Amino acid sequence: MTLRRITVDDVRQAAGGLAGTAHRTPVLTSRILNDAVGASLFFKCENLQRGGAFKFRGAYTALRRLAKCKDVRGVLTYSSGNHAQATALTARILNIPAVVMMPHDATPSKVAATIEYGAEVIRYHRHTTDRELLAAELAGDRGLALVPPYDDPDVIAGQGTVALELIDEVGSLDAIIVSLGGGGLLAGTALSARELLPRIDVYGIEPMAGNDGQQSLKAGRIVRIPPPVALPEGALATHLGELNFDIIRRNVTAIETVTDPEIVAAMRVFLTRMKLLVEPTGALPLAALLSGKLAVRGKRVGVIVSGGNVDPDRLALLLRERFAEHDFPEVAHRLAN
Amino acid sequence: MTLRRITVDDVRQAAGGLAGTAHRTPVLTSRILNDAVGASLFFKCENLQRGGAFKFRGAYTALRRLAKCKDVRGVLTYSSGNHAQATALTARILNIPAVVMMPHDATPSKVAATIEYGAEVIRYHRHTTDRELLAAELAGDRGLALVPPYDDPDVIAGQGTVALELIDEVGSLDAIIVSLGGGGLLAGTALSARELLPRIDVYGIEPMAGNDGQQSLKAGRIVRIPPPVALPEGALATHLGELNFDIIRRNVTAIETVTDPEIVAAMRVFLTRMKLLVEPTGALPLAALLSGKLAVRGKRVGVIVSGGNVDPDRLALLLRERFAEHDFPEVAHRLAN
Repeated sequence: MTLRRITVDDVRQAAGGLAGTAHRTPVLTSRILNDAVGASLFFKCENLQRGGAFKFRGAYTALRRLAKCKDVRGVLTYSSGNHAQATALTARILNIPAVVMMPHDATPSKVAATIEYGAEVIRYHRHTTDRELLAAELAGDRGLALVPPYDDPDVIAGQGTVALELIDEVGSLDAIIVSLGGGGLLAGTALSARELLPRIDVYGIEPMAGNDGQQSLKAGRIVRIPPPVALPEGALATHLGELNFDIIRRNVTAIETVTDPEIVAAMRVFLTRMKLLVEPTGALPLAALLSGKLAVRGKRVGVIVSGGNVDPDRLALLLRERFAEHDFPEVAHRLAN
Repeated sequence: MTLRRITVDDVRQAAGGLAGTAHRTPVLTSRILNDAVGASLFFKCENLQRGGAFKFRGAYTALRRLAKCKDVRGVLTYSSGNHAQATALTARILNIPAVVMMPHDATPSKVAATIEYGAEVIRYHRHTTDRELLAAELAGDRGLALVPPYDDPDVIAGQGTVALELIDEVGSLDAIIVSLGGGGLLAGTALSARELLPRIDVYGIEPMAGNDGQQSLKAGRIVRIPPPVALPEGALATHLGELNFDIIRRNVTAIETVTDPEIVAAMRVFLTRMKLLVEPTGALPLAALLSGKLAVRGKRVGVIVSGGNVDPDRLALLLRERFAEHDFPEVAHRLAN
């Protein structure tokens, strides 16, 4: 693979391609959360994007390019769920056959939606299969074009359109906070944000149990970890992508981690205070803000809410679990004052 | 009381007063729901309003006028919850003492929020107390100005700003659908919508168990019913307001009813398909649309989502109840195709 340098021009081109097809998602604010965190927060709601997550942007940008090649027989990808849905939906829009590999423990509604959009789904065991190896084999056997979920210039450019829209709408920001899995959204965001606002702080947030990104930034190279066990299924990649790490290394201020209970508390705050359904991965940035892990007091802060695909049964369970707001005296105290 | 005729100019004046204080809430769309209903739906999301409901608009408009009177000692109101919260929040913003009467079965989080905003809360039994009589007595005893929840020109003008914003944003509409309790939102909406778009159809939706509005429209006079038992606590008024009925009678196309299971199915669709938390009252219009009770095929339809204040415990219960999408073969079928 040629390491073609991705620039904000690629992001702008992706934005042009997405216009009229992707939603321009709303930017919401909450006085209660501003007071709780002591900053001006601007929530870019990609949970309200088509397919329920920002992933539509990257998948559509990548498949649109492929659709222009006359000899494309179909696409293959692998994903815990949101990129799967986005690829299947995009493939249907562009009329391309799609094969999607999904892990054994993927959210049932994400699997159902992917099949409903017309993709062929192949399941694999997340703890025993090297999904990238299997994907390369399958793509070769079937003559399909591989669209990786994050380590791809078109995917990164597509994801970068989120920050482009956010900054276009709210103007200058001091910081922008993004959830981190394989690094597609973080790399795209860093690219756009730093180009438009060179002094902006860019933060990536990942689950404490899967902090390969934090380790990688510290080590100055991509660190690989065993498949992590944590709630945010969209942030359980075992390593950053190469293109992604190259951009992240140069542009990201810091990577912080949060725990599952902190994530559930943030989901609950989104639901009760902002009336938004946000999935665990999408709640990573607010979890970091509410637990006071980021130095943002008095600042203007962009918060990317990456997705909202949660099964109702699972949501019911999380709502009834006893790790709620009141188990986080600091969060409860902040929200009350 | 003088029956001062309320006009769209009152609504415009209310809009001016609310600018910069109320949220201009987003208008969201969903291709899946458009396909399911066979119409272009524009959801005006007042569940994302301050205080979690449209009620902020009316309360602020009414209290702002009162705050200009030098001899105002404080305000008194009665409400199942959303107008209570809105009055308490508004009173705090305007620095006026507030007393709020709330029924014995009000949602606990609504009571908590009302107290948290600094209001004095007085509880009454919804089935045995004439709340309007008690309110008049209390207001007289304490020298407080009474701000009724819906039968008030300023409240109606404030609620009318929702439709004003919606039509300003999306342009022409063939129909607009609104939940109906005492008639504040429906009257305000009818006033704005009919003035801006004289041919628009205006629909009010109320719970089947409390269809006093439907009966009143048919009878040509305000029909009073015993306190109804149904899920949408914001739509359990026993009768329409006088000012409200006068406007509704002249401007509303029809009033339709829905059942509790239809409401829960609509709440679930909001949550899973649009990632929005909507309270039972707010789900009335979508419940009517999904059960095919309105002739809107091929039309451009405004849907006012009135509020999103649901207790997490109650939500968990509703999510686990077995009356869900799949119990409505017609809804499930529409959503799948």
